[in-house]
Amino acid sequence: MKTLSLNDIQNLDKRYRTQLINCVTGIKSVNLIGTKNKQGHTNLAVFNSVIHLGSHPPLVGFIQRPTSVVRHTFGNITEASYYTINAVTEPITMQAHQTSARYNDEESEFDETSLEAEYLNGFYAPFVKDSPIKLGMRLEDVIHIPANDTKLIIGKIVELHVDEAFIENDGHLALENMPVVGGVGLDTYVQTKKIERYSYAKPDQILKKL
Amino acid sequence: MKTLSLNDIQNLDKRYRTQLINCVTGIKSVNLIGTKNKQGHTNLAVFNSVIHLGSHPPLVGFIQRPTSVVRHTFGNITEASYYTINAVTEPITMQAHQTSARYNDEESEFDETSLEAEYLNGFYAPFVKDSPIKLGMRLEDVIHIPANDTKLIIGKIVELHVDEAFIENDGHLALENMPVVGGVGLDTYVQTKKIERYSYAKPDQILKKL
Repeated sequence: MKTLSLNDIQNLDKRYRTQLINCVTGIKSVNLIGTKNKQGHTNLAVFNSVIHLGSHPPLVGFIQRPTSVVRHTFGNITEASYYTINAVTEPITMQAHQTSARYNDEESEFDETSLEAEYLNGFYAPFVKDSPIKLGMRLEDVIHIPANDTKLIIGKIVELHVDEAFIENDGHLALENMPVVGGVGLDTYVQTKKIERYSYAKPDQILKKL
Repeated sequence: MKTLSLNDIQNLDKRYRTQLINCVTGIKSVNLIGTKNKQGHTNLAVFNSVIHLGSHPPLVGFIQRPTSVVRHTFGNITEASYYTINAVTEPITMQAHQTSARYNDEESEFDETSLEAEYLNGFYAPFVKDSPIKLGMRLEDVIHIPANDTKLIIGKIVELHVDEAFIENDGHLALENMPVVGGVGLDTYVQTKKIERYSYAKPDQILKKL
């Protein structure tokens, strides 16, 4: 095992540190966030910081890096209040990754990556047609994180489109049987394979495998 | 595809909803958080909400559910300011899951699950000996999330212990080659397999596979 102190970490080469520290928190979710500004211009961007905040109400967060440079996703969300979160699957990892390129205002990542936009139920923001889990989100709150000038963007799921073939009897959505990918660090995409599902844990009771 | 409105989601059976909504955000990290209170009593709890917040400084967050019931992890962290975050691997998924049982004040999950505590470099809080990625954390901030009365607990990595055999030349820590697991929903553990690693994305440039 290698040990690095805070000082060691701070003295690492910037790119090396960014790679390493982005990996140490574990496997990440990978989602495409779809937005549209008031002029009707769409944007699509890959995020690996989407996180479950609560089920009742159904709240989802993600981290927005400092807004000193133009961030179309954040700008569009605060302008329109509605956005979409779409699970990334194995066939579209390359296109999803390409959305992280810095396109200018006139370009839409949908066009540039050939990911197809889909409008459902009159929802304002575009979904990703090929995704098997699509969340229609309404902005709830933007929380500033002073420690590094990032923001936690919080939204409520106002509609959910999901491939119901993978919903089990108790509500578990078996991502482990779907082509939904995970992420490692900044740039690596992984498929998953089930190890085990366990029963609700109680003291002095042996876990069941479900 | 099945469509659920916000109203449909709110009318689901509570347990069903909790299962489903915990799955829709994607693959999760799985970590054990180790703490110790001022009486020297240790606690260990599995979390699937640990998230990367930044690399410079190295900041990591996790979500703490409402503190109306006793939460040993949160209490110990605010009391002592130091805690550990330890990656969960395939051989210890069952023990990790068992830490989610509600043990009383006198019981330590280290004893109850036979996960071995390890003290490194005089760091206050216990690490999990069998983990290949161990973060020694210092509390930086606690941010209240009014939307559902949860908290974002933010800490700085003050020491990092990592199996250096998996650090690549550019700093990428290849979790995809390690037995580090991911999580689905509330209770499912998955192993990962690399699909692809891509180069930094730029407009009008084809991604390289790394």
